[in-house]
Amino acid sequence: MTTDLATLPLPTVKDVEAAAVRLKGKAVLTPLLESQLLNARLGGRLLVKAEMLQRTGSFKFRGAFNRISLIPEADRARGVVAFSSGNHAQGVAAAAKAFAIAATIIMPSDAPAVKVRNTRALGAAVIFYDRWTESREAIGARLCEETGATLVRPYDDAGIIAGQGTIGLEIAAQAEAAGARLDACVVCCGGGGLVAGTALALADRSPGTPVFAAEPVGFDDTARSLAAGERVANAPGATSFCDAIVTPMPGAVTFRINARLLAGGVAVTDAEVADAMRTAFDALRVVVEPGGAVALAAALSGKVPVEGRTVAVVCSGGNVDPEVFVKVLADG
Amino acid sequence: MTTDLATLPLPTVKDVEAAAVRLKGKAVLTPLLESQLLNARLGGRLLVKAEMLQRTGSFKFRGAFNRISLIPEADRARGVVAFSSGNHAQGVAAAAKAFAIAATIIMPSDAPAVKVRNTRALGAAVIFYDRWTESREAIGARLCEETGATLVRPYDDAGIIAGQGTIGLEIAAQAEAAGARLDACVVCCGGGGLVAGTALALADRSPGTPVFAAEPVGFDDTARSLAAGERVANAPGATSFCDAIVTPMPGAVTFRINARLLAGGVAVTDAEVADAMRTAFDALRVVVEPGGAVALAAALSGKVPVEGRTVAVVCSGGNVDPEVFVKVLADG
Repeated sequence: MTTDLATLPLPTVKDVEAAAVRLKGKAVLTPLLESQLLNARLGGRLLVKAEMLQRTGSFKFRGAFNRISLIPEADRARGVVAFSSGNHAQGVAAAAKAFAIAATIIMPSDAPAVKVRNTRALGAAVIFYDRWTESREAIGARLCEETGATLVRPYDDAGIIAGQGTIGLEIAAQAEAAGARLDACVVCCGGGGLVAGTALALADRSPGTPVFAAEPVGFDDTARSLAAGERVANAPGATSFCDAIVTPMPGAVTFRINARLLAGGVAVTDAEVADAMRTAFDALRVVVEPGGAVALAAALSGKVPVEGRTVAVVCSGGNVDPEVFVKVLADG
Repeated sequence: MTTDLATLPLPTVKDVEAAAVRLKGKAVLTPLLESQLLNARLGGRLLVKAEMLQRTGSFKFRGAFNRISLIPEADRARGVVAFSSGNHAQGVAAAAKAFAIAATIIMPSDAPAVKVRNTRALGAAVIFYDRWTESREAIGARLCEETGATLVRPYDDAGIIAGQGTIGLEIAAQAEAAGARLDACVVCCGGGGLVAGTALALADRSPGTPVFAAEPVGFDDTARSLAAGERVANAPGATSFCDAIVTPMPGAVTFRINARLLAGGVAVTDAEVADAMRTAFDALRVVVEPGGAVALAAALSGKVPVEGRTVAVVCSGGNVDPEVFVKVLADG
């Protein structure tokens, strides 16, 4: 845990390409969706990378599988540990299962029962901690020390970033196959691993295509950090229903990449996100979770304009409680 | 309109293969989805052909495009006509637009505004008829006679059946790529074009895989016709929320194929369909309309058993009103 993340070598497109080789046949090659009606409405061409169709319902499996494949074999046999009650938990659990190694997921004791059940059904052990009185980092460190397991971070890790970047390689190839030249690409951003990896891939495969981070209003730490030229944290007290990506500040590793490669960041409101979820339901027939819809919201709201252009967006996940989805549809 | 459908030459797998060549790059090669959690729950392997991701949100584009491509070029320029307020309308409209020819869709005057709007947005002209006082067949026949346009039937047509059958070719290839041997395939059935085409393809590409038609209870005319060895109609008065497939009796052409190739039919309740829609939401993150979920319902309910086996199902469309979807999710 004492690694200085700010000085580690950064991943390159070669690492993303190596990840793509490892993930072939393991991760789903998710489609790049398009709706004629939506294009007509927007006056441009919108291409939607459908990562809700990825294994476990989000992009997280890609990074987790790639990261685990990079653990030396003898260490790998001792298993992996992750903190998460959400998409990262399921991504790590499914990736560990694919390697037939043990995964222990450290979750808050008040995590939703369905998420605990799904994580266990993917073969992982779940350890609970009290988020008010215990430190998950301390629990994780002790577990790794005792068992020799490896901690799999959610984003601030070269192997994770390279795995998520395979989405960028696929977008470039799928856009080309669809006869499209990308005028922009917008990616959902929490800690910044997905957008960093995607930007690495697109800088190589679609140079000149600006890549934007999309975040919820109040959690636009990456956008503000890009503007400031250094990592800045979110002000306390903000709320958003985009639970998957309400991170406190950019990652140390991810920001070094994003500061170099991103064209900027845009922030969207919960209302714009809900509208994007409804549009995905109506026009694309897919389920997008709030945190997975921020990039689509950025395009539909015109914050990254589509008119007269071709824009790709990543819809990063689809794990949303039915109650939340019902409310979003009913409010439309 | 005087063609004797009962004696026309039937399509073969060669026609399906020719359709696949025509549709390449025009129709979406929709993914064959799979959920590890769902497989664990079912104790088998369930593969879901995701046709809600097809252009216009249902499989109908495939048949319409193939059928239009078979019209001699001089006639084709005079346009096409179809009766439908649903998926067939949008499929024909999008296919006609792809050929840059005129499409006229004859809809009941009480058709939902959103369906009229979407059909028009796809470039089709809409003509209304009063379903109590006017005959849509007569209106269509007059239109075809006056303009030289060609009527595109929804299912009882060799070109339509061959187009829908491309789904079967894709399922066989995708299952093989996933290392799966199909113990059964279940297909949603209204007039029977989709299941007939799929059965033609699978009889060639996956011989020995039984193909079943899935229908709503009360509209299981194909199941009962298969059992009776001749076409029988549904009793009047039945109701189902599977609006896309509540047809009165099997097609003359489709039944000749289905009687030869299908292993049987299963009927599912609206409650089983609603459960399947919720499972598709939760485990696969896709939107399935009621009529598009009957095959999935047949597998999840155990009517076509998955335990210890590998079963493919076609989810044929995702055009469902938000109000209906909200009710389905809220009732779960």
